[in-house]
Amino acid sequence: MSTETSPQGTVAAGFESVREEFAAVAADEGGDYAAQLVAYVAGQRVVDLWVGPEIGGDSLTGVFSSSKGAAYLVAALLVQDGVLDLDRQVSHYWPEFAAEGKQDILLRELLSHRAGLVGADSGFSLEEIADDRVIAARLAAQRPYWRPGTAFGYHALVIGALVGEVVWRTTGKTLQEHFEERVRAPYDLDFYLGLPEDRESRFLTTLPMRPTPEQQAELAAAAVGPESLSGIASNRNSDAPPLEELPNFRVVREKGNASVGGVASARGLAGMYAAAISEVDGRPPLLKPDTVAAFAQIHSVGYDLVIRQHKTYGLGFATIADTYPVLGQATFGHGGAAGSQAFADPRSGLSYGYNRRRFGFPGLPAVQTERLVKALQAVVA
Amino acid sequence: MSTETSPQGTVAAGFESVREEFAAVAADEGGDYAAQLVAYVAGQRVVDLWVGPEIGGDSLTGVFSSSKGAAYLVAALLVQDGVLDLDRQVSHYWPEFAAEGKQDILLRELLSHRAGLVGADSGFSLEEIADDRVIAARLAAQRPYWRPGTAFGYHALVIGALVGEVVWRTTGKTLQEHFEERVRAPYDLDFYLGLPEDRESRFLTTLPMRPTPEQQAELAAAAVGPESLSGIASNRNSDAPPLEELPNFRVVREKGNASVGGVASARGLAGMYAAAISEVDGRPPLLKPDTVAAFAQIHSVGYDLVIRQHKTYGLGFATIADTYPVLGQATFGHGGAAGSQAFADPRSGLSYGYNRRRFGFPGLPAVQTERLVKALQAVVA
Amino acid sequence: MSTETSPQGTVAAGFESVREEFAAVAADEGGDYAAQLVAYVAGQRVVDLWVGPEIGGDSLTGVFSSSKGAAYLVAALLVQDGVLDLDRQVSHYWPEFAAEGKQDILLRELLSHRAGLVGADSGFSLEEIADDRVIAARLAAQRPYWRPGTAFGYHALVIGALVGEVVWRTTGKTLQEHFEERVRAPYDLDFYLGLPEDRESRFLTTLPMRPTPEQQAELAAAAVGPESLSGIASNRNSDAPPLEELPNFRVVREKGNASVGGVASARGLAGMYAAAISEVDGRPPLLKPDTVAAFAQIHSVGYDLVIRQHKTYGLGFATIADTYPVLGQATFGHGGAAGSQAFADPRSGLSYGYNRRRFGFPGLPAVQTERLVKALQAVVA
Repeated sequence: MSTETSPQGTVAAGFESVREEFAAVAADEGGDYAAQLVAYVAGQRVVDLWVGPEIGGDSLTGVFSSSKGAAYLVAALLVQDGVLDLDRQVSHYWPEFAAEGKQDILLRELLSHRAGLVGADSGFSLEEIADDRVIAARLAAQRPYWRPGTAFGYHALVIGALVGEVVWRTTGKTLQEHFEERVRAPYDLDFYLGLPEDRESRFLTTLPMRPTPEQQAELAAAAVGPESLSGIASNRNSDAPPLEELPNFRVVREKGNASVGGVASARGLAGMYAAAISEVDGRPPLLKPDTVAAFAQIHSVGYDLVIRQHKTYGLGFATIADTYPVLGQATFGHGGAAGSQAFADPRSGLSYGYNRRRFGFPGLPAVQTERLVKALQAVVA
Repeated sequence: MSTETSPQGTVAAGFESVREEFAAVAADEGGDYAAQLVAYVAGQRVVDLWVGPEIGGDSLTGVFSSSKGAAYLVAALLVQDGVLDLDRQVSHYWPEFAAEGKQDILLRELLSHRAGLVGADSGFSLEEIADDRVIAARLAAQRPYWRPGTAFGYHALVIGALVGEVVWRTTGKTLQEHFEERVRAPYDLDFYLGLPEDRESRFLTTLPMRPTPEQQAELAAAAVGPESLSGIASNRNSDAPPLEELPNFRVVREKGNASVGGVASARGLAGMYAAAISEVDGRPPLLKPDTVAAFAQIHSVGYDLVIRQHKTYGLGFATIADTYPVLGQATFGHGGAAGSQAFADPRSGLSYGYNRRRFGFPGLPAVQTERLVKALQAVVA
Repeated sequence: MSTETSPQGTVAAGFESVREEFAAVAADEGGDYAAQLVAYVAGQRVVDLWVGPEIGGDSLTGVFSSSKGAAYLVAALLVQDGVLDLDRQVSHYWPEFAAEGKQDILLRELLSHRAGLVGADSGFSLEEIADDRVIAARLAAQRPYWRPGTAFGYHALVIGALVGEVVWRTTGKTLQEHFEERVRAPYDLDFYLGLPEDRESRFLTTLPMRPTPEQQAELAAAAVGPESLSGIASNRNSDAPPLEELPNFRVVREKGNASVGGVASARGLAGMYAAAISEVDGRPPLLKPDTVAAFAQIHSVGYDLVIRQHKTYGLGFATIADTYPVLGQATFGHGGAAGSQAFADPRSGLSYGYNRRRFGFPGLPAVQTERLVKALQAVVA
């Protein structure tokens, strides 16, 4: 095994097999594969590994939709505090949202990708898509793409903006500010919704997918138009740069779009979920068991109109065990387009963070996660 | 390329590639393939082609479920006029419909294939299935095959009758009369719900599918019984001729069952959708953008209990972009069993009509549509 | 054909082809395949066959989830009597059920696998899983695994307990007692929810699956963890014996868990469904046509969160024609894990019972059923 595929970093006693599996993944991926893998059990970091050129344990990359986990954690905290009520209409908090037949949509439904506002009819410019408040203002005026109550679809670039607007209207602070104050700063997590200038030196640009000709053909066969629902949801009905490049623009990293604009290391990803369910650094878990159960409870099941295949969602969070059924049913988290994945399993106490720099094929979810999760689960189960 | 596979007719400058693709389709289909292809952009006819033996640009054939587009257009016009309210109970307009637990079903739900009345427990005779008012009277008395609110399924032969009865009860005119007066006659469209005697000479009988032995085996493996939900929905629980032959009976063409009894050319199909969204012949679009958006909005998503696979529907109209995602998300239309297909994409202004005489394998939707739509989209996008 | 694969027993004139197909199935299965096949038409037993070592026409085996048919039949009788109202809240009958957001769940929803209580967070011991009242008490306190109203999933081991508790609260008798008094005893059916000591001598233990290496690999690939929703639903999050062995424990046979604890012969299975829809032994059908239609009406359609694939359910009963579309749409029944299958088709008057001793691959539903049903249907249609 070459040096390039020998993971650096540490594992706790008993987790040697996880390091081996990560090494095997790196060998199979080959090329310039660069990734980080971190796991906690019961609030203790038991795996802290990285592999590949340029990357270190404290390197930061764009984590795309793994950002959403941070957004949902803020929502969960505010629900836990009694500040937000899941069974209130969104329009109660945000009157403009009532337009075009959306007056009865509940916060609970908004969170579970049921509001039908997956993108803007006319697309967003780069500056617009970077700024959650601009996104929210635009979508408030819009007709849902499906009849509320009949369907759901992944609000890929905008769910954080929609939830964030409710947060802002209710508390006078942005979702990003809440995240910084209540989650990131207290634990000094490397997980940013809005990357400070002074951490920029640790940021590694996202690298594009390198599909084989066969993979390229497969992607082409599944291609959809910019004006399809999936095209709109990924803002391809605009002149903005493609989703895949967004984290490479400073304006996106600075504003920290809460759907896809987060920047983190695997330590940051896993650390956030560990703090959510476990005592970490002497602090009690951020979420009470009841809050975890409420947000992990399945809310949407079936054909996702944007993803164009079967999906399940909790309150925003992906219900990870439907994809990786070796995990406990209440496992909640999120992955990102380049292949990042993060979650917590409250049953076993496992928290997981995985990050890769170059887009994997076929994109979210990274196929590595299944192997790495099975290796971890074999130790913790 | 033989003469038989060289399309006749005209295309506007820039659309030569569409003629070429249609020629390629004809060559691939071979045999006695006979079809018409017409497209409008912004109300202007840009493609007007036909190919194959016996057929001409003004030939008429049975268009099966493409008829439904005419039915839904009438419903949309009456909603736009304020005559029908989508959120009223069907039983408000049609009291007998309230029987057997159907009292709360909304017009909106009826239109989106949610009422559970996909056919008659005891089947329809040929004369009955030809006559929408007879169909409606029978179904009003019936228990839904599924619990209202829990599911949907394609009301293949009867949705037009059910919607039509609401129209008749409300306006004192049949859906067919409204279509003739407001849509067909003003534009002199070759799209008939009720073919006048004097146009019969242009009608070409529908020809049956000619499956290969392999295709025959595939069809046999998927065969369902006459008393299954799919069997009932295609009226196979009766002594009537099979769906495939219905347009070949004068009584069906004369009565113009608004679900499957329409007769049209591709010019008629595309022309109707052009008139719906664009200025045509100096007349303003039949539908306002808000009406289009309301009827194209997705209302049913998931497993269609009749089709036995994933489907999506708007308000009656098929949400075409879920099948052909190169198109805009609001594309609305319908296809028919022999392979006809028609729609409008309000985003690009494209209207499409395709008609083939002989049933293609495996039936709706015609595989040609994907190729032809891609060729058109490459020009208009 | 060896003696072992020549079915014993009788068929009525005209059903010889069914015996032949059963013989062909036995030959294909080979090994120690032991099974029973019984059918009624219009209340008359027309097929009464068995094949294989040790088994006779009156042998009894664990029928696993075919037990549920008995539970639903009791519910249907009590609804028919006006004792239970499908549109009442479960909590009306059973106040403790209201806990954790379940106060609005209707009896209709409970029956159609929508309540989200597919198992216990902490699993059940063998003694607990044998006893429906213990199961019910535990689940009443629990939070649903999904948001009520958004999804459904197979309540594999507990649906009978949940329905049974409503029965007990309402009538002061257990579901098992109702079944004995109203169904089993009057017809002297060999179908027991609680096997009396004096019938034990006819019980054959259930034998485990014998997968080939390829089948073993397929099962391993689909394996899910004990804490996944599917794992919880099959009580694998406990130290109890696996589902596959439950009928081999006397406590399970004695208590007669109404979800999976039934013991029957194919005569008992088919006889129960015959009594449900037909005059048998001079008694009128147990269920009126309206009750049959209400319980066969489809209530849940889509992705089953436990089975992890597409399913449909009526009011508890499996809507058999979605799986075997040669049958009539209102066919209602249930199958069991080892491969038993039983149903009635009110359209043709066919009642069907099939039982096999050794688990087949891949478990429910037995692939034999399709062949045997087609053979029967060819005679009765």
